[in-house]
Amino acid sequence: MSFQFATRTKGLRSSAIRDLLKVTEMPNMLSLAGGLPTPDSFPLPDLRREADRLLGEYGPRVVQYSATDGVVELRTWIAAHYSVELGRPVSVDGEIIVTHGSQQALDLLAKVLVDPGDVVMSESPAYLGAVQALELFEPRFEVVPGDEHGMCVELLAERLAAGLRPKLVYVVPNFHNPSGATMSLERRRLLAQLADEYELLIVEDDPYGAIRFAGEPLPPVASFTTRVVHLSTFSKIVAPGFRVGWMIGPPEVMAMVARAKQAADLHTATFPQMLLANIVSQAGWLDAQKARIVPMYRERCVALADAIDDRIGDRIRFHRPEGGMFLWTEFRDVPDTKVLLQHAVEAGVAFVPGNAFTIDQAPDSKARFSYSTLAPDQLVEAVARLTRALDAFDAGR
Amino acid sequence: MSFQFATRTKGLRSSAIRDLLKVTEMPNMLSLAGGLPTPDSFPLPDLRREADRLLGEYGPRVVQYSATDGVVELRTWIAAHYSVELGRPVSVDGEIIVTHGSQQALDLLAKVLVDPGDVVMSESPAYLGAVQALELFEPRFEVVPGDEHGMCVELLAERLAAGLRPKLVYVVPNFHNPSGATMSLERRRLLAQLADEYELLIVEDDPYGAIRFAGEPLPPVASFTTRVVHLSTFSKIVAPGFRVGWMIGPPEVMAMVARAKQAADLHTATFPQMLLANIVSQAGWLDAQKARIVPMYRERCVALADAIDDRIGDRIRFHRPEGGMFLWTEFRDVPDTKVLLQHAVEAGVAFVPGNAFTIDQAPDSKARFSYSTLAPDQLVEAVARLTRALDAFDAGR
Repeated sequence: MSFQFATRTKGLRSSAIRDLLKVTEMPNMLSLAGGLPTPDSFPLPDLRREADRLLGEYGPRVVQYSATDGVVELRTWIAAHYSVELGRPVSVDGEIIVTHGSQQALDLLAKVLVDPGDVVMSESPAYLGAVQALELFEPRFEVVPGDEHGMCVELLAERLAAGLRPKLVYVVPNFHNPSGATMSLERRRLLAQLADEYELLIVEDDPYGAIRFAGEPLPPVASFTTRVVHLSTFSKIVAPGFRVGWMIGPPEVMAMVARAKQAADLHTATFPQMLLANIVSQAGWLDAQKARIVPMYRERCVALADAIDDRIGDRIRFHRPEGGMFLWTEFRDVPDTKVLLQHAVEAGVAFVPGNAFTIDQAPDSKARFSYSTLAPDQLVEAVARLTRALDAFDAGR
Repeated sequence: MSFQFATRTKGLRSSAIRDLLKVTEMPNMLSLAGGLPTPDSFPLPDLRREADRLLGEYGPRVVQYSATDGVVELRTWIAAHYSVELGRPVSVDGEIIVTHGSQQALDLLAKVLVDPGDVVMSESPAYLGAVQALELFEPRFEVVPGDEHGMCVELLAERLAAGLRPKLVYVVPNFHNPSGATMSLERRRLLAQLADEYELLIVEDDPYGAIRFAGEPLPPVASFTTRVVHLSTFSKIVAPGFRVGWMIGPPEVMAMVARAKQAADLHTATFPQMLLANIVSQAGWLDAQKARIVPMYRERCVALADAIDDRIGDRIRFHRPEGGMFLWTEFRDVPDTKVLLQHAVEAGVAFVPGNAFTIDQAPDSKARFSYSTLAPDQLVEAVARLTRALDAFDAGR
């Protein structure tokens, strides 16, 4: 069918990971490719009890339209939580907007801030969802490399000193997806200083921060400057299927985002917000949930990392993350991990090639392994299959 | 705080209706200004029972990430429902995308289709939410007046014959918000013919169609041509606080929308989709729900319309809608209903001035009254207050 409009995509990029999921649905496939939280972590009995109470006792308002910036019960919890986390009072009104996941926060920020050609800075490798949300508004991406201590903020400082003026700087400081890196305290402080000095807006995306299983917690960049929009979500710490995330930021930015949110979907769904607000507001609930689920991720991360050390040894390099869901690796003798992936799929294991997380998508030696959804013994078997795939790759060269 | 970006709004317009809601929260205010469905219509016991079953029996998948185009259970219901409604097979895959309310469908369509300066056609008066979603992408709005039989499609035909080529034509054919009009069968057929002849894309927004309390149902425009993206929602027939709507359209358009949906929020929340799919899929449930709630709206519409006839008489003109939530009126001697609104608020009643639903927002004599949330006796009292406001307005001239 033809239309008055040319069929075009306005810069839309399909997710390589989503496409990969088709492969991972094959029978007997062990997938290290996904990014789903482990289903064992979902607090189904708590959700069930609270859903029953809401629909039984609270009356129709839990399923009625609600405020564009979020239901007050949830904003009250967020304000209290971040007043501690950021070390300054966060207001229930004007600083918080509840979104359909952190992904929507990225989309709304892009929508109100980014015009075609605007410079957007990101780490490389970068979270693909952020790239997808931003690129629809046609920015010019500029990347700063990251290492195991996060974005090389010193290099950002050089670029700024040389005159670059980004519309926003996007960082994932805790257990980065895909790199697993945690930004050091020094770099967090420096990034905040640069924001103040150059009047930058930092977008600090923190979906994984609560899943820390090693090392000490570090203060968010938003605790060092108010020039930050801080994003987080219940997707990893409670459950992702409610699509409830939030952003906290300067009132002048949040006012613009609120108007865009209203145009985008009026408001975030009322019932999921009420459900999650009531659960996390119970005294001690979140600490107990973390105490229950963080060891799951620790155990899986250790199982995967140990198996790689044992079986693949010096043919691969990686650092052990302090939390989150991802192990980022570099193969010594694999110039293009997309080719290795083909052997891997034949051997019954899947992962995401590193170039999927770059702007230019040039082939590279890297790969992201997720340890979140497989049990420890499955992770060991996945590495055994990966080893066979690596042998087959070597034999085919 | 200053930033590298100028604080601007990229065409964002705050909703006059949302701003009005602040006034309507005053104690003792009787509001005809809102557009909320009556809370009495929400099937809380059914929702409670099904939520319990999902969280108790279905396991973690009901709160896990899910497919970008919607959970298969809901798409299966939508496909079956519209295969009947449209008189042709609608596929579960490729033709349907579940959205966070119809509002998000409008946002996504605007995002993939509208470039700055593109012509978008709408009725006037127009649904404000659609204008808000579209204007962010900076189209050139062209309006065609509507009457009590919907958009004057004959005038659209003249504009097309004269060379106008819109990117999309937006219509609300059933019980329009704000006009209450229902598009006649002849105009539906003509609109479909024009779409085929000029290769147009029609966006047919149908949130209210199930709430018909007079006259005979008419086939949707999408039953006469496939050049339609048809939008609907559970917001009015079940409950709005789940934010579950959907669109059905040509696969080539839906493929673009799916990529934008992924970038916007990954997918619509899983749990609300499962909950609503399971409820509406029960044999006979939707018919029973309609039989329960349609009389509520009929009774309220009659109460409001009769009270206006009795108390205000020939100082106001309106037609009685065949369904939906809105009564659209024109005052004989009020050149600007914003001025009348000030007197009305003093008298303890609120409504939305007609110019809020126009692109140019020029003052006019019109007003939208919603009868959805007040009880019949409250509607009678609201009209009594409105009459006092009208007297005060006349006295002040």
